[in-house]
Amino acid sequence: MAELVSLDGIKKACDVLYSNPDIIQTPLLCHVQNMFPKIDQDVDLYLKLENMQTTGSFKIRGVTNQMEHLPPEVRDGSGEAVTFSAGNYGKAFAYCMSKKGLKGLVLMPHTAPDDRVDMINSFGLEARKVPSHEIYEHVKKCVADGYILLHSFDDVNLVTGYGSIAMEILKVVPDPDVVAVCCGGGGLVAGVAAGLKLSGCKDCRVYAVEPTGAPTLYESFKAGHAVTIPGVKSVATGLMPPCAGEIPYKICKQYLEEVLLVSDEEMVESMKILYDRGLKVEPAGSAAFTALAQGRIKDVKGKKVVIVVTGGNITPPELAKLIG
Amino acid sequence: MAELVSLDGIKKACDVLYSNPDIIQTPLLCHVQNMFPKIDQDVDLYLKLENMQTTGSFKIRGVTNQMEHLPPEVRDGSGEAVTFSAGNYGKAFAYCMSKKGLKGLVLMPHTAPDDRVDMINSFGLEARKVPSHEIYEHVKKCVADGYILLHSFDDVNLVTGYGSIAMEILKVVPDPDVVAVCCGGGGLVAGVAAGLKLSGCKDCRVYAVEPTGAPTLYESFKAGHAVTIPGVKSVATGLMPPCAGEIPYKICKQYLEEVLLVSDEEMVESMKILYDRGLKVEPAGSAAFTALAQGRIKDVKGKKVVIVVTGGNITPPELAKLIG
Repeated sequence: MAELVSLDGIKKACDVLYSNPDIIQTPLLCHVQNMFPKIDQDVDLYLKLENMQTTGSFKIRGVTNQMEHLPPEVRDGSGEAVTFSAGNYGKAFAYCMSKKGLKGLVLMPHTAPDDRVDMINSFGLEARKVPSHEIYEHVKKCVADGYILLHSFDDVNLVTGYGSIAMEILKVVPDPDVVAVCCGGGGLVAGVAAGLKLSGCKDCRVYAVEPTGAPTLYESFKAGHAVTIPGVKSVATGLMPPCAGEIPYKICKQYLEEVLLVSDEEMVESMKILYDRGLKVEPAGSAAFTALAQGRIKDVKGKKVVIVVTGGNITPPELAKLIG
Repeated sequence: MAELVSLDGIKKACDVLYSNPDIIQTPLLCHVQNMFPKIDQDVDLYLKLENMQTTGSFKIRGVTNQMEHLPPEVRDGSGEAVTFSAGNYGKAFAYCMSKKGLKGLVLMPHTAPDDRVDMINSFGLEARKVPSHEIYEHVKKCVADGYILLHSFDDVNLVTGYGSIAMEILKVVPDPDVVAVCCGGGGLVAGVAAGLKLSGCKDCRVYAVEPTGAPTLYESFKAGHAVTIPGVKSVATGLMPPCAGEIPYKICKQYLEEVLLVSDEEMVESMKILYDRGLKVEPAGSAAFTALAQGRIKDVKGKKVVIVVTGGNITPPELAKLIG
């Protein structure tokens, strides 16, 4: 199979990203297992902190690379872009579009908190809430009306941009044994896995971690193709698109060890553990950490385990509601 | 003047600390100025994250060393210790005492939140609230009644333990130009300054940063001796003991460049900036960062500036009240 994502593409994306002062090469905390008594102390633990990234999540890495490959009519302002997101992608998208002086429309599920709508508006873009299960119909309608779709996870330029995280991990840990990544549409874990495997880490086990209430990649692996699951539901709103992306699915199928599941209660417990250690992490951002904390990842003793903490977009009142 | 704190003492304290699995050599984030547009981008910024320390603040470093030098009657359980604290020292004290199976009494100002009392109790120690301005009288009365005082900031073993932070900074940044430290009783900044200066960093400028509402070290520097200020008041409850410690004052007088002041509003603004970057920091913990963010530290262009983020003990509802 021809590679959807190439190492050369990821390296070029890194050049694009690092020429943009907004993109942070986020901290990678090393050997921090003793901060977490719940983690097996024989694990050599690394935390990649994308909750410290600009816009509060990893999404801006992908969006910055996506913007580099904009359709000409979006780039020159003659056409308007549409996308859909529950939050983090929408925030990164709005941030990057506004920096380029471009307009666009973000369709959001009706369950998204109002402050996410305000936040998109604050960047000068339009946010429109629609019923969650109708969101794709609304996207299609917008496209029929002349909008140009920029996909929020099923886009090779996004996946390639996310590969930059693998490059940063390898600069510090050239030989990770395990890398676990939170998974929604699958774009992030696809990019990270591709970056690792194409860099020669053949024996590194890469895991995607999904909520039990939104196991789209998990079910896609079982079905042998990217599936849609109606009625996904999770406290991790960032991890519950109704389907796995086609492109991420193909890449994940090639490179992933396994898809692991964690419950809402387990993710909230991890959020509290991380909060007690000074880190503000949203539910979705704690999924990969949760898989390790709950013993879901096999054979970790003596191993270098890298956990990608993906996002920190949560307000203090939301935190108070979840962890008291 | 004979040194109150010696480099040899600090190195011995490091041995004590690092033989205790509770003590974390906390992360030092490097070159992170681009995470904070408010900071002069010509600064080479380092953040030492003691909000990630066990018990949520740097205090456990000092307490662990203090415990190594306990009076025999406290150590063997024949006598009971008393101390006083608004929160972080009390938490670290209770944590360390309970690990040794020892009892003790923590006097707290009546302004301390109830959950701090519960937290001390959860370690099996007694917490007793008394009116803030009477706290020293209550301490004296306890001592008259046979309790043995373990001071919460005016103690050379505490200061020596805090010196471990300087050692960890120097392992990563051997030649810092500026180190800024949040300051309450002055023990932490005294220990850090001693560690730096005794290690040969003669040109490194070390700053203590206090709230405008509790400028005890600032006023002590003006007076030429450690002063008491009645009616201190600040959002940074961890930085408002009514006096500077005698021992910290002497060490600070010898090693510090200057004492800087920041307002409550400025500290809350910094908390929000840090929160937006994924870090949970209490008001007191943000003081040193605030001094840099507000341009209070002179001559920082092109300089290696290390900010010690000292504590993260704040609940989500408290956060919600302060930063919305």
